[in-house]
Amino acid sequence: MGEFELIRRFFDRADRSAPAVVKGIGDDCAVLAPTPGWQWLVSTDMLVEGRHFLSTVDAERLGHKALAVNLSDLAACGATPRAFFLALALPRADAAFLEGFARGLFALADAHGIALAGGDTTAGPLNVCITVMGEAPQGQVLLRSGARPGDELWISGTLGDARLALEVFRGTASLPGEQFAQVRRAMELPQPRLALGQALRGIASSAIDVSDGLAGDLGHVLKASGVGAELVFEALPRSAILAGQDLALQQECLLSGGDDYELIFTAPPGRHQDVREAAARAGTPVSCVGRISPDPGLRLLDAAGRPMAERFASFDHFKS
Amino acid sequence: MGEFELIRRFFDRADRSAPAVVKGIGDDCAVLAPTPGWQWLVSTDMLVEGRHFLSTVDAERLGHKALAVNLSDLAACGATPRAFFLALALPRADAAFLEGFARGLFALADAHGIALAGGDTTAGPLNVCITVMGEAPQGQVLLRSGARPGDELWISGTLGDARLALEVFRGTASLPGEQFAQVRRAMELPQPRLALGQALRGIASSAIDVSDGLAGDLGHVLKASGVGAELVFEALPRSAILAGQDLALQQECLLSGGDDYELIFTAPPGRHQDVREAAARAGTPVSCVGRISPDPGLRLLDAAGRPMAERFASFDHFKS
Repeated sequence: MGEFELIRRFFDRADRSAPAVVKGIGDDCAVLAPTPGWQWLVSTDMLVEGRHFLSTVDAERLGHKALAVNLSDLAACGATPRAFFLALALPRADAAFLEGFARGLFALADAHGIALAGGDTTAGPLNVCITVMGEAPQGQVLLRSGARPGDELWISGTLGDARLALEVFRGTASLPGEQFAQVRRAMELPQPRLALGQALRGIASSAIDVSDGLAGDLGHVLKASGVGAELVFEALPRSAILAGQDLALQQECLLSGGDDYELIFTAPPGRHQDVREAAARAGTPVSCVGRISPDPGLRLLDAAGRPMAERFASFDHFKS
Repeated sequence: MGEFELIRRFFDRADRSAPAVVKGIGDDCAVLAPTPGWQWLVSTDMLVEGRHFLSTVDAERLGHKALAVNLSDLAACGATPRAFFLALALPRADAAFLEGFARGLFALADAHGIALAGGDTTAGPLNVCITVMGEAPQGQVLLRSGARPGDELWISGTLGDARLALEVFRGTASLPGEQFAQVRRAMELPQPRLALGQALRGIASSAIDVSDGLAGDLGHVLKASGVGAELVFEALPRSAILAGQDLALQQECLLSGGDDYELIFTAPPGRHQDVREAAARAGTPVSCVGRISPDPGLRLLDAAGRPMAERFASFDHFKS
């Protein structure tokens, strides 16, 4: 199977129309038509075997996840997804792998109305690099820098299951089969919170998605906004499975676990009800977990509001 | 050196302003402001060691080439470059390598006024994936599909030196040191023809860049346009070094050699003088090398207009 046949067979869906894509696969560049008065949001993520996914991963789930982690960046900016680009290095042109990968990729793409508009394929060690493009009305993009003292701190969904699954793979935790399948699903099939991000336009003051762990990612917001935060440990949303683990493991998974792809966002307390309504419209559960303060740093509080001693570490690809 | 320090030290140049980039490195997405009435052109290329560059490549030249091959796609569409995104998998955070890579990358970026607006870094087998974005006025994008019977066929610069260098690396050809340095330069430091592409807006009927070889890439234009072409072998522009090689090697390098990153384009014969003037404005030599015909297929002619028998092969990453 040659390069062009591979693209034609698995990735070229010229029959699918996408309003923003004037010209998709098949020329030197894709041609995209901007919506007047909107801005483009662009993000790129590279996934490498052994780092971002295990060699045991199912091809369909890999296709899903590679796009999901990118869409999550669009969600964190409140963007409407428009087009994505896929660069793929493959050890060999394996039809069974490509079929599964494309199935997972396009199922998620179709669910969010985003079109594959171009890409590149080459032989090489397995590497999946996706660039996503979305749009948001000018001035309504959610950034990391907008959190203000007094803002409430919110988190979508639950945190920590992906990390719990990783600990099981590592052999440092164990779970009954059905529970393992569920947390593995969280790790391998994250759901980007696009509907929530869009619903929060004009309401949230800042947002970020949790890819490297709550403490580290929230730290980016605090730094970019020049503020600090108090986080109530008991308020952190977690699954019943994670809630059943010992406290040290819970803390590790909730605070330092990556791969959650939930949104952390802030909004003024006066918008509390608006946040609740936006979340309901988006069909996404949200939890209020703390508050932005003028004092730099991140402080973890117990249910009684007393500080808990914690070492926060987020995931860094060139450390540990 | 951690991931964030690596980005800050080598790639974050927040001090450089770029009008199209509202928000660059440091948020979940980059924010780009479209020019009203223009369309976005987007292309992505992935470079893998051993496939697209040799392990002996100089880091600075690799930085140059990784961006150059992408800019060449923008050139082929007549686009003005705006922003690019860099995803990098590195076996280790090697400061000397990164410094050289960034130097080559930014020298070319600055020469063409394109800003690094975001990216991703991870540990993994060396892989460089760049996505470029540019703009062109709506309706003036150069596509592969616009060639019409009777159009003249043009090529910028010279072809084949990059392939000649590769043959020397492979040991199937040999050159004196100075000549080798020159063709190696063609292979490692290709110059994207952006000024020419922009000058050809409204003049050229179709365009493509030569990445996989003249025969194969011209074939894409012919197929997309539903036409054929006659190509005059003697008219194909080549360096004095390549012209000094035996004919079989010349043919191989001119017709099947990839990595040239020159533009092949077509224009109606009535625009001949306009093409010459556009090329002069862009400071880029161009050669008229043949003509588009209504009969499908690519025919190679000798100086007397007689058909030459040729087998055309272009480069395919999953074949040969």
